[in-house]
Order: sequence, then C-alpha cells, then structure tokens
Amino acid sequence: MPSLLVSNIKQLVLAEETPRTTPVPGAELAKLPTLNNAFLLVENGRIKNFGPMAHCPERADKTVDATGRYVLPSWCDSHTHLVFANSREDEWVHRLKGLSYEEIATRGGGILNSAKKLREMPEAELYEQAQRRLEEVRSCGTGAIEIKSGYGLTAESELKMLRVIRRLKETNKMGIKATFLGAHSLPEEYRKGNRQGYINLIINGMLPQIAGEGLAGYIDVFCEKIAFSVAEMEQILEAGARFGLKPKIHVNQFYCMGGIAAAVKHGAVSVDHLEVVDDGDIAALSGSPTIATLLPSAPFFLNDPMPPARKLIGANLPVALASDFNPGTSPSGCMPFVVSLACIQMKMLPEEAIQAATLNGAFALEWGGEYGSIARGKVANFFITRPMPSLAYLPYSFGSNLVERVFVQGE
Amino acid sequence: MPSLLVSNIKQLVLAEETPRTTPVPGAELAKLPTLNNAFLLVENGRIKNFGPMAHCPERADKTVDATGRYVLPSWCDSHTHLVFANSREDEWVHRLKGLSYEEIATRGGGILNSAKKLREMPEAELYEQAQRRLEEVRSCGTGAIEIKSGYGLTAESELKMLRVIRRLKETNKMGIKATFLGAHSLPEEYRKGNRQGYINLIINGMLPQIAGEGLAGYIDVFCEKIAFSVAEMEQILEAGARFGLKPKIHVNQFYCMGGIAAAVKHGAVSVDHLEVVDDGDIAALSGSPTIATLLPSAPFFLNDPMPPARKLIGANLPVALASDFNPGTSPSGCMPFVVSLACIQMKMLPEEAIQAATLNGAFALEWGGEYGSIARGKVANFFITRPMPSLAYLPYSFGSNLVERVFVQGE
Repeated sequence: MPSLLVSNIKQLVLAEETPRTTPVPGAELAKLPTLNNAFLLVENGRIKNFGPMAHCPERADKTVDATGRYVLPSWCDSHTHLVFANSREDEWVHRLKGLSYEEIATRGGGILNSAKKLREMPEAELYEQAQRRLEEVRSCGTGAIEIKSGYGLTAESELKMLRVIRRLKETNKMGIKATFLGAHSLPEEYRKGNRQGYINLIINGMLPQIAGEGLAGYIDVFCEKIAFSVAEMEQILEAGARFGLKPKIHVNQFYCMGGIAAAVKHGAVSVDHLEVVDDGDIAALSGSPTIATLLPSAPFFLNDPMPPARKLIGANLPVALASDFNPGTSPSGCMPFVVSLACIQMKMLPEEAIQAATLNGAFALEWGGEYGSIARGKVANFFITRPMPSLAYLPYSFGSNLVERVFVQGE
Repeated sequence: MPSLLVSNIKQLVLAEETPRTTPVPGAELAKLPTLNNAFLLVENGRIKNFGPMAHCPERADKTVDATGRYVLPSWCDSHTHLVFANSREDEWVHRLKGLSYEEIATRGGGILNSAKKLREMPEAELYEQAQRRLEEVRSCGTGAIEIKSGYGLTAESELKMLRVIRRLKETNKMGIKATFLGAHSLPEEYRKGNRQGYINLIINGMLPQIAGEGLAGYIDVFCEKIAFSVAEMEQILEAGARFGLKPKIHVNQFYCMGGIAAAVKHGAVSVDHLEVVDDGDIAALSGSPTIATLLPSAPFFLNDPMPPARKLIGANLPVALASDFNPGTSPSGCMPFVVSLACIQMKMLPEEAIQAATLNGAFALEWGGEYGSIARGKVANFFITRPMPSLAYLPYSFGSNLVERVFVQGE
C-alpha cells in the first residue's frame, strides 16, 4: 500500500507522543495535545509518524497539502442503532401534533414499529440501507462505530440484524463493533404476565447462537421504567457474561433507578444516555473503569433535558459522546453536530467535546489502542477540515460542513 | 439562455397554480400545494411551466431526471447579517466558561467587537469573506436573502458594509436586498449622556448618503433594553420613511417593550426575533400586513427560550423563518437546519416550516411575486433533494445534507 504524507497541517489535533492506555478523566478532557505546523505520515494504513514540519519527510508516494487546515482523528461513535428498516418521520409528525410517546406506542409506534418493519424486510435490503447510512456517517468523519441489534426482538430477526452488522464489517474498512440488544423493548405478546418468557428467550434462545457464531462482543439492556428493570438487566448481563459478552448499557434516560451502580458492578464498559443523574450514580461511577457516554442528539430531538455534562466532568469522570443514530429519537449520525450540541447545550468546551467524541469514544469501544487519536501505530483514520481560523470554529459553526476529506486506513 | 426541464419529480412542493399575493396566514401554513409525479420547465431563468408528467414537454435544451426526489422553491432568508469581519468563536468559548453577555461586552465583545474588526478590514477583504458565506448558504438551498449593515456604527463603515452588499448583488444571481441597521448598538463614545448624538448621526450623517446612493431599501433598529428604546426607534423610522426606507425591526428578543405595536404603526414589513411575545403584541400584529419573523438558531445558540411559534400560528398570523446568520448569536446561515429546529423545538409542522422559510420569507423580503414558490413567471430558484421517503424526512433528518442540486435563475 502506497505511503501518504499530509503536510503543512495548521494544527494536528490529539497528537499523542505517548498514547493513553485508559480513558481521559473529566479534569483532563480540556487538555488536548496538539501540534502546530505539522506533518502526518501514513504507511500500510497505519500512522507511521508525525511531527513538526521542520522534520517532515521529503517524499512519499502521495502527498496532500493541508495548509490552513486542521487534522483530527476520526470520530469514534460508540453508540448507534444504524441498522434499521426505514425512517419513522410519520411518528415524529404525530409527536409534533401533540401525541405522547405512550399514545404513539398504542398506535403501534416506537421500537415495536421498527421491529415490525425490520421483520418484514429481507436481509439484503436491510444491508443496503445500513450501508448507505454508514457511508453518510463516514463522510461526516466517523472512523469507528458501534452498532446494536434490538429491532428484531425475535431470535430470527435479532440474528438477521447481527448478520447485517457482520456483513458491514466485511465490506467496510471502518472499525465496526456489534452489540446484542435483544432487551431493547418487551414484545407485545410477552407484556401480559409473561415478561420472564422473553428474558428466557434472550438467555436460552438467542445468546447461545449469537455467541456461537461470534456475532456480538457486547450485550446491552434498555434499563428503564418503560423497558427492563434493574433485576431483569442483571439476569441478562449474567447470562451474557457466561458467553463472554461485556455490558454496554442504556440507562438513566428518563429515571434514576439504580441501574448505573448495577451496570458498574457487572463491569460495564459504558453506561449510555444519563439525561438524569443523581449523586448515587456519580458515586457508583467514581473510580470505576465504566465510561459515561452522553448522547445529546436524543434529548435535542425529544425536547428533553440535556445530560449534566459539567457535573460529570466536575466529578472527574471519563465522558464520551456518541450519536445514538436511530429512527425514533435521534435520526442523525452526524458527529460534528453532536460535538456542537455538546458545547452549545451542555457547556462542554470545544477541546472536551472533541476528546470525548474521539479518544474516549474509542475507549468506549474498547479500541483505545487502535483509534481515537493521532499516535504511531494506530489505524490511520482521520479527517482534514476546511480552512478554519481556530479549532473552536468547528463546533461554533454548527450548521456548516467543515469536514473536507476523510481518510479510512489512510485511503 | 437554454431551456431546462426537470422531469419525473416525485413531488413538486409549493406549486401554485394561482400565486398568492399576500403572506400565508398561520391557519393556512400547513396547507402546502404540492404536485406528485411532476415536471418543471424553465426558460430564460424563469419558471415557464409545471404540471403532471402526463403533460411533460417532449424535449428541452437540457433535462434533469429527478426520480425519487423532491423539488422545492429555494429558501428565502429574510434576516441575516452575512457581511461581517471574522467569526467570534473566542467570545463564545468565554460564554461556555460562564461569562455573561455583559461581562463579554465589558471585555470588548459583542456587536462592538464586530464593529471594531469591521472598521479595520479593507472593503475588498470584507467582500471576499461575505462572498464565501453567500456561496455556502446557496449550497444549502438559499435563493433570496436579506443582508443588513450594523457592524459599522460610523458613517464610513456603515457605507462600506452597504457597498459590499451592493457588490454582492452585482456579482451574484441570487436575489439580495439590503437593510440599513445603523441602530444596531450604541457606540462606546455615545454611551455616557450622548445617546441622541448617535441617533442624530444616523439621521443626518448616514441616511442622506445611503438614500442618495440607493444603498438600502429597508431600515432596521435593534429595539431592546440593551440597545434602543421604542421612542428612539420611532424617531429613526420616521427619518428613514422620509428617505423611502421601510422598517424591518429587531424586537422582542429579550423583553416585551411595546416595540411591535410601534413597528406596526410605522408600517413595518416584518418584526423579527419574538422570543418573548405578550397578548398586546399579538393584538398589534392581528390584521396588520407585518410578518412575524422567527429566528430559532439564535435562541438555540444562546440557550434562550424558543419563540412561541404555535401561539403566533394559532392567532392566524403570517409567520416567516430566517437564519439570523451573524458571528455572535447565530453563526450559521443553513436554512435546512432552521427548518428542522422550527419543527423539533418550536413544534411547527414540516409543511408550516417549509412554507414559512420560502413563501413567507419571500413576502418578508417584499418579493412574494418573484421568489418563494413554484409559479409561472417567478424566478427559477429551486433545489432538488436527494431521494427521500417523504417531505417530512427533510426536517426530520436534522443532521443530513439532503439538498442535492441547487438552481439559481435556472442554472
């Protein structure tokens, strides 16, 4: 593979001489290692070297001039539902007209609506739709991504989703990890007195086959009043652990239920959403390796309160940002907008938001050694911005597309 | 000029058989005239004809196939400050860190910061920057735009800004109108006991020359506690009227001060902002020809309350949407995002928001006969979307760029 040299970079962002091996804690999020007037050298799809232009190599097979431009590591989007069957704007319009989430659910809306559509859609079409979405988020600068199942809710359809994710991995150079989210919503037929029946199906009817085919590395549960209880989550996580699946949990979107402490106890890689957080939640996270992953596009789209990012950062917790791309509550996988929103509406500083959406996103994917920063040996997934006066200009210009060229494995 | 045929349009939006001659009232905003499976024919930069594909002309000099795509009239952005000298993200970061607007002003920030930068920048550079911004908003689908002065605040610099706008008109095919906003902020040197001195400068030192050179068609005043009082506004509007300048007013951004009633009394084309509105304001607007123009990007960026769009629409007022593109409070001129925001955070329906951002925007520019809808004889400024499942998908997909091809005067 030919070598690539990016020269005359105005500022190389997140350039790590000694790469971090653990997530960036809150207090250090604003300390972004940068290098002005820099070069970046790529060989065989990996970052070979970087440094000041004074030490720039004389030649490479291909050279890109980045005068006036910033180079950032690609976004690591650690929480998405990118595989789904069709958008749900009709339901959104019903919400704008004043219907509640419950009323929409009664009319067959919500997650069960997506599940119905997904069951009816052939795997090939599901793949084609997901592939187009993946191309779109890549054009916004995403270089590594987590994708969940959870719109199947039957063994057959959950497996179909996970096989689509596997095919996306095979046909794309972007980093992709799969999470099994059978416990996304309770199917209609189990709602009347047979909750345990569905949990048993997840544990005995889905997990063995998913683990057997190696279709997922992580297990997720929507721990919420309208979904699964803390006790139900623990039961599912224990089963997942027996098959080697690590927890990444939907929790504290609407209520504080003690789910964060339980997730930490089970060694969760991340706890995601956190629109509501109490002192017990913060105490549970403190000192744990679990990453607090915030998804501001969802409360933006739902008109809900934003996660208390400053409180979490103030408690020195590692915070990551992700898109939550899904058709019901966050129909966008655009990470530059997530970073803008984190600054504008959660008061994160530009440096904090950028580091949360790249390096801490990589750690929330358990890929801190491969993605998320400019470090020698890491995968060469990065993007070049349009000319900008400052790094803060990137989130400040919330309506502009400032991602000019995207490189995945140096291509 | 060669003729252009757009064929196989999935849906032609805002196709008016009989063009409206007055702004769309609130109760009719959701009634969007559309035509499925349509063609659009352009000749000499104007819309020559449109209709169902069954009546499609057999040929034209150039044909564009729009299968699966929507065609919309270009956005008419009736409130912008697109001519400015440099962005102000540094100030924004100070705000994120907790400084108040007043503290930032004390440090030389805010409008006076822009005024200082603008006075120092040569006219040619100011033009180059504005031209790049204009190209960016055009790529988002804007086809007609209002641009204000107001970062000069001296006769010389206000004239410089208005001459830049004139040059933009001469070098671009987009529809551009200019508004004189000398009364944007009170310069430092007039703040201590000499407010009337600056108002006299506007009236005697700026207006005659601006009118003499025909540099503006409209006059604007920032009527607000931190800027100009209602009585000061009236004095300025009366002077403007003597020179034939019609009012378009910044009002009710932070306080209800009776400015709307005064603006209506002076025949204002539009009253803009309206983050706060009381019953007296609504009564003043009812039955008047003045358009209520909402700028949701500003409260989004400032974390302020959104304008009460539903209340205004419920009172059957004509509502328009605009970007307020400016470096301090809305650093984006992206109209698709404004339309998304209007739906997501002001509960406007997609049809209402689209009509408010096109046809009512055109009326707020006093260009209802030229722009804002697909009607025979109107200027052929329109855009073709990427393939979409429905029209509501456009605002629903808030992070996606769905504007695929933009035509200005049919090119």
